[in-house]
Amino acid sequence: MVDAANQLIVELGDRSYPIHIGQGLLQVNGVFAPYIRGNQVLVVTNETIAPLYLNLIEKNLSRYQVDTLILPDGERYKTLHYLNKIYDRLLEKKHNRSTTLIALGGGVVGDMTGFAAATYQRGVNFIQVPTTLLAQVDSSVGGKTAVNHPMGKNMIGAFYQPQCVIADTATLKTLPARELYAGLAEVIKYGLIADENFFYWLETSIDQLMNMCPDSLATAIMRSCENKARIVSQDERETGIRAILNLGHTFGHAIETAQSYSDWLHGEAIAAGMVMAAELSKLLGWLSPDDVLRVRELLAKCQLPLWAPHTMRSDTFLELMAVDKKVMDGTLRLVLLKSIGQATVTSDFDHQLLGKLLKNRL
Amino acid sequence: MVDAANQLIVELGDRSYPIHIGQGLLQVNGVFAPYIRGNQVLVVTNETIAPLYLNLIEKNLSRYQVDTLILPDGERYKTLHYLNKIYDRLLEKKHNRSTTLIALGGGVVGDMTGFAAATYQRGVNFIQVPTTLLAQVDSSVGGKTAVNHPMGKNMIGAFYQPQCVIADTATLKTLPARELYAGLAEVIKYGLIADENFFYWLETSIDQLMNMCPDSLATAIMRSCENKARIVSQDERETGIRAILNLGHTFGHAIETAQSYSDWLHGEAIAAGMVMAAELSKLLGWLSPDDVLRVRELLAKCQLPLWAPHTMRSDTFLELMAVDKKVMDGTLRLVLLKSIGQATVTSDFDHQLLGKLLKNRL
Repeated sequence: MVDAANQLIVELGDRSYPIHIGQGLLQVNGVFAPYIRGNQVLVVTNETIAPLYLNLIEKNLSRYQVDTLILPDGERYKTLHYLNKIYDRLLEKKHNRSTTLIALGGGVVGDMTGFAAATYQRGVNFIQVPTTLLAQVDSSVGGKTAVNHPMGKNMIGAFYQPQCVIADTATLKTLPARELYAGLAEVIKYGLIADENFFYWLETSIDQLMNMCPDSLATAIMRSCENKARIVSQDERETGIRAILNLGHTFGHAIETAQSYSDWLHGEAIAAGMVMAAELSKLLGWLSPDDVLRVRELLAKCQLPLWAPHTMRSDTFLELMAVDKKVMDGTLRLVLLKSIGQATVTSDFDHQLLGKLLKNRL
Repeated sequence: MVDAANQLIVELGDRSYPIHIGQGLLQVNGVFAPYIRGNQVLVVTNETIAPLYLNLIEKNLSRYQVDTLILPDGERYKTLHYLNKIYDRLLEKKHNRSTTLIALGGGVVGDMTGFAAATYQRGVNFIQVPTTLLAQVDSSVGGKTAVNHPMGKNMIGAFYQPQCVIADTATLKTLPARELYAGLAEVIKYGLIADENFFYWLETSIDQLMNMCPDSLATAIMRSCENKARIVSQDERETGIRAILNLGHTFGHAIETAQSYSDWLHGEAIAAGMVMAAELSKLLGWLSPDDVLRVRELLAKCQLPLWAPHTMRSDTFLELMAVDKKVMDGTLRLVLLKSIGQATVTSDFDHQLLGKLLKNRL
């Protein structure tokens, strides 16, 4: 069985579910059993992860009808077209309403598999098995599922909770350094929006994290998930406080959309977006220059970009930001920082300052 | 304002919503206002309905940003491909999370618009304005939204409730007779599954209904919606009793899928399916020969088919039924009749009898 000490519950009434975090969880016999209802399982993964972990997971599921689908790797494949391949496989293999989908991979696999589970036969069970740092601390937690549309990221989706999340930290050993660093951007985000002590701990522990020290990684993942679970529990469908989890995302999504989801990693775009949000917070007199410097230094240490690509024009930015999901009644709202550890969602800022920020690379 | 006497509430806790039924409702000034949150509206309709009622509805929405999308007419267009056209229009016109979608049309428009609302930006508001009898008594009520997949009907969808249903019985005046009769199949279904008195009333009132007597139609619609609302309130996500609403649908969906959704109307396939379910119930010794005859006679009077097309082979049938959403752990479950007015969902029947039924057209 799974060690309860490394378990965290996301409290959502009858949609509550556990997050298991630990080294080697995928090898624990029967780790999936409590979360599988019927006798059918579809494992969705991608061509990078399949050779590494698909056998392992299939071995642990030998008593079920296990089908698999291997998608190409990358955010640019998070589309309706590839989503349809999940439905195709489910129907080819005659999966019924008591089937369970397992998302084995990073955020893209998790978002698509979750959305397929939300919509196949109007909703079936699914399990998140995140294999990237970013997915372990962010995309697998909280029930946001989606695919992209050419005109906007995550525009088609649903709030849909998994039966459980199984975050095996051993899978991070095979993660390329660039993806590890991109994941650290989301880890740093939790410190920035809601947990000043954690931000400080990150400043002092960043070398160990970049060197994949298992204990430091486990701490960072647990603390990130705790922060996210607490916020999601308060506001499952993002009608209020949950929006602070999107620090840097309105800027970041605009960058990703402008690149057709094909150049920067999600965490890299979010890193640039967080610096932009911090600089705007400074222009508004909310964040001190010293604090902005701390943000820049920590992200720079992780070899993350500190601004949008210089080729991106400010009018492209404004146009892409205008379709962001946080726009309400035509008014752009942004997540900005009052201090390190305290974020706010607001439309109450001088929009000329935003124009200035976008025109003058700081 | 809308007359409360012709209003019915579907009780679903914080997802409860009213159904307004009445002649000329679309012309009542401000009929939509209480159900629209932001300042944006997208009206989705089809090429048959648009010339008849789109102007009327746009006039009633003049204070909002109103965009429109006109889809081709027919079940064969209820696909991911056409669903995507709704997302395209929403994004082109920069609709944000406080937008409201209005489904103006029959079941296809309602199912697709509802699913688009369920998934655009992870969920926006929508209003059902059903213009066919079938949609007024069935598809617009209960929150089932979906699109078809080439391998199965309604395989991709969500449970998602509208803000309200506005059933203007005046729109039935333009309904072709064939569609009126197809709608009567679903009306008859409510009598069969849960309301013996209503079935008797239908037997005595069928001529008035087929002649579009407004009072008889209003009674039939109200009584159908009351029956459906009561059942849906007990079991929103169809984990139990709600499945009886699918009387004839497992057979009917197989017919529709075999025809690629292009020949019979949904109500026609359901009529044939209900006869097949009744005949199987008779073979099981549950329904008397006299009762089966009553079912056949009432449906025949409405010029509805009483069996699947003779070209459809029994093995095709069994294969298509095997992917039905009511299959659980490989076991086919069917809605069958214990008597007129009492349906049951069961896998506890002799499956050889089903094979016999499909082979020998009765």
